[in-house]
Amino acid sequence: MNELRKDYLLNRWVIIAKNRRMRPTDFLHESVEEKSGVCYFCPGNEDMTPPELDRISEGEKWIIRCFPNKFPATTLECGEVKTGPETDLFTKISAYGKHEVITETPRHGEYFHELSVEHLVSVFDLYSSRIKEMRKDERIKYVTVFKNQGKEAGASIDHSHTQLIALSIVPPLVNAEAKASNRYLKEKGSCPFCDIWRCEKKSGRLIFEDEYTISFTPFASRFPFEVWIMPKRHVRSLSELKYEEKQSFADMLKRILSRLYTGLNNPPYNFWFHQSPDDCNLHFHLELAPRLAKFAGLELGSEIVINTVSPEFAARHYQEG
Amino acid sequence: MNELRKDYLLNRWVIIAKNRRMRPTDFLHESVEEKSGVCYFCPGNEDMTPPELDRISEGEKWIIRCFPNKFPATTLECGEVKTGPETDLFTKISAYGKHEVITETPRHGEYFHELSVEHLVSVFDLYSSRIKEMRKDERIKYVTVFKNQGKEAGASIDHSHTQLIALSIVPPLVNAEAKASNRYLKEKGSCPFCDIWRCEKKSGRLIFEDEYTISFTPFASRFPFEVWIMPKRHVRSLSELKYEEKQSFADMLKRILSRLYTGLNNPPYNFWFHQSPDDCNLHFHLELAPRLAKFAGLELGSEIVINTVSPEFAARHYQEG
Repeated sequence: MNELRKDYLLNRWVIIAKNRRMRPTDFLHESVEEKSGVCYFCPGNEDMTPPELDRISEGEKWIIRCFPNKFPATTLECGEVKTGPETDLFTKISAYGKHEVITETPRHGEYFHELSVEHLVSVFDLYSSRIKEMRKDERIKYVTVFKNQGKEAGASIDHSHTQLIALSIVPPLVNAEAKASNRYLKEKGSCPFCDIWRCEKKSGRLIFEDEYTISFTPFASRFPFEVWIMPKRHVRSLSELKYEEKQSFADMLKRILSRLYTGLNNPPYNFWFHQSPDDCNLHFHLELAPRLAKFAGLELGSEIVINTVSPEFAARHYQEG
Repeated sequence: MNELRKDYLLNRWVIIAKNRRMRPTDFLHESVEEKSGVCYFCPGNEDMTPPELDRISEGEKWIIRCFPNKFPATTLECGEVKTGPETDLFTKISAYGKHEVITETPRHGEYFHELSVEHLVSVFDLYSSRIKEMRKDERIKYVTVFKNQGKEAGASIDHSHTQLIALSIVPPLVNAEAKASNRYLKEKGSCPFCDIWRCEKKSGRLIFEDEYTISFTPFASRFPFEVWIMPKRHVRSLSELKYEEKQSFADMLKRILSRLYTGLNNPPYNFWFHQSPDDCNLHFHLELAPRLAKFAGLELGSEIVINTVSPEFAARHYQEG
């Protein structure tokens, strides 16, 4: 059973996935396909993944497929976890939850941005229905949704996929953003993200906008060519989006990822959603982090980040294509 | 002039180093030596660095040398920086400060852990005297000290070196740790780090200890094989250490880095110091982060980290050598 351990003092949590990696060669970052010569995520190899949870089909064949992660970070086991001698400094709980994988395409080597807008809307719908399913368990407080594209972004399997990790805690970053958002709402009477997109619309950081969706390089971008995409309407989660809003959102994400791919030579990237925790009113949005730079001692040891590409420059890159 | 920009809502700061990198090839992570065929940090090439600030010599030759970073993240320029239309969401100040480099050895290719204990004590002394010098400017609130070893840890120059960045703000991570430390001290009447090392001494996470210094893998290690080293005596900064304490600290750091090098095949790593901000009483310590794993979407988007090596396992690795 994995443990969720808290830093001695800070609200910083780590899932200790015990002794899965122990030798230097375990950290070589080969993809699973490279190691085994087989793609577990390809059609025909469905029996190589844990039993399927859901699929979207065209005819007899799946086009999007969901199944449990073979090496889950969180599980439904919930054994007793003892805390250390000085309980205030040594807090741990069992890493309770679920960890699922969604392969967004049956075609090995196809990129997320190459999928059609309609297909991406179906991918979003499967994210939503899996989140809804996992949230039926009252102990689950939040479901993280994230995509790792490329080895340098942490992908260990090349076949395009998204991961969902259901957790018994609201993650620190989402919690901090949601709490700060609530405070702003109380003080100013408006959602900060509704204010942010209206400001960014007039800034030099706007990338695209249409009736429903807006995208921009955030003012204090931590990553070169970082992008945030959000629905203009104040919604708390992906599942609240209407069909046209999802179409617009998918289209904008697809265009931005395409420009990342062509203009920046297919860089590794991560994206993730920030959805509102239950007791908050956080404006749903997507954050896209191209992994062109590396965090070094300054970033890890102080949490001050150096970004050598100004968001104003990055916005022009996306606008000009 | 670089800018220090704050996240819309979070206490998260970014130094925007404007338009230094603009093309995909700017992110290839070649070292400067590989690109140019010349090492700017080697003896004989002193005129390739900005004018020297300090050196420690043996005879006529330097053995440790300090000079300004050629591409500083912070500078003494302090122009007016306008804030955006909604000042609460768009906070920026000029990235005021200094950015220095210390080459710890004249020998290209020599590793930090290969330096003698006496030599490392001299390196520490130069860190201290540079910090003292930079802190003479009252606008400087904190000096970060960090080392990036290996490309994957963000080093752009192979020749072994440490960086010092003086800042007009206390970095968020140091600030949070110091504030939490103060709260603990108020509630419990003791320094949390003094309590932590006494607990870790009896845990399965102890690596080494002697009269003056203790090292352990922290309870909620975020990095595989992460190590913290701290003086047993409660001191707020490196400069407060007595000669024997510095010797002991250097010896322990050297032994741990040697075991990292041999046992884990010379992995990239970062280390950094946490020193106490002026108005706090933070217990000085060093944090060492081997860069064997990569932060992916979960880590960057939620700040929950998956670590596949338990600190208990990692401690045995260091103990057994």
